[in-house]
Amino acid sequence: MKVIESREGEIYDIELSEDLLEKNRKLAEENKALLNRHQVLGIDVMGSIGSGKTSLILQLSRLLKSKYRIACIAGDLTTTIDAERIKKEGVRVIQTNTGKECHLDANLVKKAFGELSLKDIDLLFIENVGNLICPAEFPLGAHRRIVVVSTTEGPYMILKHPYIFQDADVAVINKIDMAEPMRVNPDKLSKDALHIKPELKIVKTDCLKGKGIDEVIRVLGL
Amino acid sequence: MKVIESREGEIYDIELSEDLLEKNRKLAEENKALLNRHQVLGIDVMGSIGSGKTSLILQLSRLLKSKYRIACIAGDLTTTIDAERIKKEGVRVIQTNTGKECHLDANLVKKAFGELSLKDIDLLFIENVGNLICPAEFPLGAHRRIVVVSTTEGPYMILKHPYIFQDADVAVINKIDMAEPMRVNPDKLSKDALHIKPELKIVKTDCLKGKGIDEVIRVLGL
Repeated sequence: MKVIESREGEIYDIELSEDLLEKNRKLAEENKALLNRHQVLGIDVMGSIGSGKTSLILQLSRLLKSKYRIACIAGDLTTTIDAERIKKEGVRVIQTNTGKECHLDANLVKKAFGELSLKDIDLLFIENVGNLICPAEFPLGAHRRIVVVSTTEGPYMILKHPYIFQDADVAVINKIDMAEPMRVNPDKLSKDALHIKPELKIVKTDCLKGKGIDEVIRVLGL
Repeated sequence: MKVIESREGEIYDIELSEDLLEKNRKLAEENKALLNRHQVLGIDVMGSIGSGKTSLILQLSRLLKSKYRIACIAGDLTTTIDAERIKKEGVRVIQTNTGKECHLDANLVKKAFGELSLKDIDLLFIENVGNLICPAEFPLGAHRRIVVVSTTEGPYMILKHPYIFQDADVAVINKIDMAEPMRVNPDKLSKDALHIKPELKIVKTDCLKGKGIDEVIRVLGL
């Protein structure tokens, strides 16, 4: 992510300063230390709009809520749609509206911690803002990063977004039932992801119907 | 879009400064003046990854290339996939890789103008970087802004992204053939868009099969 800055009347493109990213990284480490102290496992869920982040969190919560005490931090520009959906599953949800911001950052997550009682939680999902670009550079302090893509996003979404796959531990290829009508080959998507990061764990799912969720749980070690 | 900045050791969220956005707006106006001088109509095509931006530009080019001399500026993080696809249609394409940047800006477009011979063009498509958040705040100098969404992005993508629809002239609801299997109601999507901006022109398309493209041409006045 770059910003434009004025310098002697000209317009330059500059990368987000290392200093600024370093400050976020430091704060993310503090967040992780706080989670560790309370023995909470944090999972950052990234992905494009409509890829199935909320559905994945809903299905994981359904299967895991008898085993773990679960909470969720839901990041969104202006609405509470995802938060309302997740609440229905009996999960405690903290809504974080980011305005025009295209990703969560460690500071926003730190603030959300203040509204949670971490000692009463075992598992914390953090649903990031919906896009495949901006969240990559901003770790939040979670122990795992999942990136969700869906076959309906076409054949190129992984190839085009190497950074976010480099930063992820698990790639979920969702809407697998739509692969055929969309003429998208899920095995090619897996191959693209593994080309970017060979140690990435890849799971194919249909989150609406609950297919593949048990495998996501397995690769997360839950 | 916000950035985090250090101030007295603390981390703050600050909005992109008005000064910076104002500089982009000014440069966008210069771009538009340049297009006007050469009688080129500029069309900024925005939308999420996989929504169908490239397919829309391909189909429009197919139908319009006998009437207008067409060029395209294709914005992408790191790849040339879209540029290669559009080139096959015989359209002159300038590739603009934005690195980790989540949108094009007026300065990048100005640079791309330098590689184009504007006097030999009538119609210029600018394919923005794929997401529904960041491009909204950065006008490029185009005469029209199209935002493309697809029914496969689920039922909430318009409600969740009011800013980009406020800034658009035309909303294209694509992959209309997938609405039923995705259980998404395209009329509800239209209603959501018109609620945000009543004067928005809305067209339903299946860009892969070329359905609805004539209507897009009509609302663009081409």
